[in-house]
Amino acid sequence: MKTILDSINSPRELKSLSSSQLKQLATEIRQLIISTCAENGGHLAPGLGVVELTLALHKVFNSPTDKIIWDVGHQAYAHKIITGRRDSFSTLRKKGGISGFPKRAESVHDAFDVGHSSTSISAALGMAGGRDLKREKNKVIAVIGDGSMTGGIAFEGLNHAGHLNKDLIIVLNDNEMSIAENVGAISNFLSRTMTNEFVHKIKKDMESFLEGLDDFGRNALKVAKRAEETLKGIFTPGMLFEAFGFEYIGPIDGHNLEQLADTFEKLSTFDDAVLVHVLTKKGKGYPPAENNPALFHGVGPFDLLTGKVHKAKSAPASYTAVFGDTLLKLAADDDQIVAITAAMPDGTGLSKFSREYPERFFDVGIAEQHGVTFAAGLAAEGLKPVFAIYSSFLQRGYDQLIHDVCLQNLPVVFAIDRGGVVGSDGPTHHGVFDLSFLRAVPGLTLMAPKDENELQHMLASALQYNSPVAIRYPRGSGLGVPLDQFFQIIGSGTAEILRESVNGPVILAVGNMVHKSVEAAEILSQQGIDVSVVNIRFIKPLDAQTILPLVKNRHLFTVEDNSLQGGFGSSVLEMLEEEQLPVLSVTRLGYPDLYIEQGEQAELYEHYGLTPSAIAELIKGQIS
Amino acid sequence: MKTILDSINSPRELKSLSSSQLKQLATEIRQLIISTCAENGGHLAPGLGVVELTLALHKVFNSPTDKIIWDVGHQAYAHKIITGRRDSFSTLRKKGGISGFPKRAESVHDAFDVGHSSTSISAALGMAGGRDLKREKNKVIAVIGDGSMTGGIAFEGLNHAGHLNKDLIIVLNDNEMSIAENVGAISNFLSRTMTNEFVHKIKKDMESFLEGLDDFGRNALKVAKRAEETLKGIFTPGMLFEAFGFEYIGPIDGHNLEQLADTFEKLSTFDDAVLVHVLTKKGKGYPPAENNPALFHGVGPFDLLTGKVHKAKSAPASYTAVFGDTLLKLAADDDQIVAITAAMPDGTGLSKFSREYPERFFDVGIAEQHGVTFAAGLAAEGLKPVFAIYSSFLQRGYDQLIHDVCLQNLPVVFAIDRGGVVGSDGPTHHGVFDLSFLRAVPGLTLMAPKDENELQHMLASALQYNSPVAIRYPRGSGLGVPLDQFFQIIGSGTAEILRESVNGPVILAVGNMVHKSVEAAEILSQQGIDVSVVNIRFIKPLDAQTILPLVKNRHLFTVEDNSLQGGFGSSVLEMLEEEQLPVLSVTRLGYPDLYIEQGEQAELYEHYGLTPSAIAELIKGQIS
Repeated sequence: MKTILDSINSPRELKSLSSSQLKQLATEIRQLIISTCAENGGHLAPGLGVVELTLALHKVFNSPTDKIIWDVGHQAYAHKIITGRRDSFSTLRKKGGISGFPKRAESVHDAFDVGHSSTSISAALGMAGGRDLKREKNKVIAVIGDGSMTGGIAFEGLNHAGHLNKDLIIVLNDNEMSIAENVGAISNFLSRTMTNEFVHKIKKDMESFLEGLDDFGRNALKVAKRAEETLKGIFTPGMLFEAFGFEYIGPIDGHNLEQLADTFEKLSTFDDAVLVHVLTKKGKGYPPAENNPALFHGVGPFDLLTGKVHKAKSAPASYTAVFGDTLLKLAADDDQIVAITAAMPDGTGLSKFSREYPERFFDVGIAEQHGVTFAAGLAAEGLKPVFAIYSSFLQRGYDQLIHDVCLQNLPVVFAIDRGGVVGSDGPTHHGVFDLSFLRAVPGLTLMAPKDENELQHMLASALQYNSPVAIRYPRGSGLGVPLDQFFQIIGSGTAEILRESVNGPVILAVGNMVHKSVEAAEILSQQGIDVSVVNIRFIKPLDAQTILPLVKNRHLFTVEDNSLQGGFGSSVLEMLEEEQLPVLSVTRLGYPDLYIEQGEQAELYEHYGLTPSAIAELIKGQIS
Repeated sequence: MKTILDSINSPRELKSLSSSQLKQLATEIRQLIISTCAENGGHLAPGLGVVELTLALHKVFNSPTDKIIWDVGHQAYAHKIITGRRDSFSTLRKKGGISGFPKRAESVHDAFDVGHSSTSISAALGMAGGRDLKREKNKVIAVIGDGSMTGGIAFEGLNHAGHLNKDLIIVLNDNEMSIAENVGAISNFLSRTMTNEFVHKIKKDMESFLEGLDDFGRNALKVAKRAEETLKGIFTPGMLFEAFGFEYIGPIDGHNLEQLADTFEKLSTFDDAVLVHVLTKKGKGYPPAENNPALFHGVGPFDLLTGKVHKAKSAPASYTAVFGDTLLKLAADDDQIVAITAAMPDGTGLSKFSREYPERFFDVGIAEQHGVTFAAGLAAEGLKPVFAIYSSFLQRGYDQLIHDVCLQNLPVVFAIDRGGVVGSDGPTHHGVFDLSFLRAVPGLTLMAPKDENELQHMLASALQYNSPVAIRYPRGSGLGVPLDQFFQIIGSGTAEILRESVNGPVILAVGNMVHKSVEAAEILSQQGIDVSVVNIRFIKPLDAQTILPLVKNRHLFTVEDNSLQGGFGSSVLEMLEEEQLPVLSVTRLGYPDLYIEQGEQAELYEHYGLTPSAIAELIKGQIS
């Protein structure tokens, strides 16, 4: 049977659909999203929450003339499906397939590339400014979640937008969640019940004003009652946005297609900055996701019927889990240890910690800049903060890391998860720049563990150095090695020689590339080539004492899950230059100077020559 | 005659002073600040604005037990003077002298290092969190200007603070300015007159409510009048902060010592999050600074009596000025060119542009993250945005540069002023990391001009590349070379050979190090050593075609006004590794892996061996 969705090849085709057809279409889109995510994994819950919103936007506005910018973008699945990517949707997040995020290169309907949170207002304001300078008339619409509103750049954008008062529509997609629970005063502010202290205070002020009008004294009771009702009307969640110079409309039901379309229809004739407050339910239409939107925020493949997430067969514990467990153990013996996350308690492995030590756990919201400086403040008071953060999000806190942590030599530990390629989230999320931008920062110790057992020792060690430390580890499972029962303190700046050959080539490997290098050495060993392998452990400070004697007059190979531009290999070149040490050759393995595409981690390692066999082959070619 | 100030060696001594003695002390402190800044230069206007505030804080609270965190910190001169640095104040901002910003290493009364804007709330919240975990009782006070409130991290901190509701005092130092004029909705919100649309709307709502109460119809006029007065009381500038969960107190006169001290006295018994709104006048007490607070925000040495800023004798035009003039010329011929600053129209040379092309000029406020993504939005619409920004502040926009500009290959031009060491502002402001963190970003073209004439050609060229470009130039005067009348388009990735020797050593120099290298070559030439000098022009992409044949089998020297960690020299090492090109030696000149102290630029070049004679000497030593 032909579905309505089968006939939708562009948003144009929505225009002629009736209300009931649109509703049917919404159901069909949901089915496609659910079945595709069950197969490929993906951001299911956000995607399901905005199906009606997406249809209403595309029914009323005219993309690509009108620009729709999806904040973060993982909620844009319905948008993709109705803008020509229905048939390719099965390739979602796969290598060579369509991206999990809007991408200009993929469709004219994707107005702006996204991936990290809270950029949409800034981008939309820029596009509105551009439109006005070109004397054009199209609409620019940013769709942003309430969780994303806690990001400082969203506020900066809002502040500037209020100042410019451009023709601009912000759709606030309020699902009362960021990724986990929402954090901060702004979410109270948006609260649908509006029972916070502020409103109470205003009500009291108002009542005493009314009581003070002596002519009306006898009606005080009646007045007070009516005042309360009126105040509820006046102190809408929109007050904040009105204060910023936006017209506020809402809140409206984000699953009521007619109401949404009517509202947008009216807005299409406005030319002021407007904020439309839309209430949606994450996971809408798929009960397992409605019931556990945090789990289904970004989810791996799952069983369609039960919603049970498929477990990789007896996969070893992830680095994330080992980090979380280790921190918990360390925290039991040291009450100065505190943990910080920027809205990712699950993703970073801190959930258990947050339950065990709620007073020592801080979720700062999507607010990486603040998270870093907040950690510096805690450290300045003698605490031992551990900020668990994804590599690509730490880019947001770079200035604070330089200026607030390292310049003061404050002992903040950065537990950097998702270092290296992360897989299907693609170029916005790969953590392949961190070794480059971090090693430029004076005073920062920069480590990477070869396996999950070393991760636990590194975390224990980092907390003893009494200076800023970053530990960088990859997304996904560890190697399945046993975890030592007792923590070992690794001396700062000490590498570990894993294999030593008399005269053969030397591999200096970082983090998850250590094990691959050992395997490469084993392959070569079978071919009669004896290779030394060093687990570098410290990208900074480099262990010159261990490395220099080993590499003198040898062929030298560096291997890292990072960009080659300014990365670890480059720091080895710097060391050799400083020491003016002769070597036969240096070859650096890592990623070239381009944005790495999406794909399974294994596929990307394969593609970029970071597998044991590729490493072995390259070494053989170089030395022969 | 002994002054009161002579007796103040720590804040303790304030406690016993009478009101009139404190007033006298304020006058004496102002005199010291003014005379010192007249001699050394410095942040005069902010410093003068908070003298009474500083005295009141230190009279009531007990530093260092109580922590006072000065946002940005250039207003902390009075604080420094009364916390043991009166006698060393004459060394302000000099090499080896006291810093222009609070520094923990300098005094126990400096609770947190600052320099960049908007960090104080985050730091204070961290310190308050630390205090509570330690079960201590001290106060934590952040003093933040209204301009700094536009920075996203301040908002992130406010949002998290409202959530935690710690015992925390934020003093909002409202002088209605950031550095230049204040930008954005939030400043309207703080406006003392509160005449914005939002308040009008609320007033209208309220009036119609009151009119609707039919019992009171006959008193409508009277009611309306009283309502208006009351509304003025209710809709205070504090509403925003109350909405964030802060108690709001103010606005109070920031030059009324008694009122300030009384207010802080009361607060010292509170244990909630409180925001005190204090109105101050930038430059207070020195008429030239009161009349031109933007000029006297950060000022060079000036004449004490007239307030006339000393001009360096016939100094050549600054890079900043040449940038501004060039952009103005280019914009005259191309109306797609737009300019962006983050609250620094004067500092970045955009003032003329802002007057000439107000519609094409955007001051986004202190909001670097937004500024970058806003530029990306403009570029996505086909405009040619030029974002003029100081190097160290671009650290704040690093993620946006990677994620919003370069990933989409959007043609945003970053005009990066204050690259390299900046002088007396010191380590928070030196732009010595940019070559390292920028060259890791795929798709970014990274240039540095050898002189101000090349700067204008580079800007003209950058606007033609149709891809992301960063041009990095130093603080201060150009070389005084004549400016060509017509722009030359420099081919992307082309270096310029300035001197070529047959077999001698080769210097590859970047930006302001090119001229010094040429002078070094001249020194060596007089000693019979013939040296090649290359003006590298493009740090990225590197001109392998020019460089490789020139350097083969030679002694090679790289010279840059940047950290050696991952900097330009390191990219040369990478190129040699990739090409497996034999050279006799490579020696990289630049800054070591530490935070560079304050001092005149010339002093720092001298100290770090970046003068012509030091370069010449080093080369001689290396090749002999």
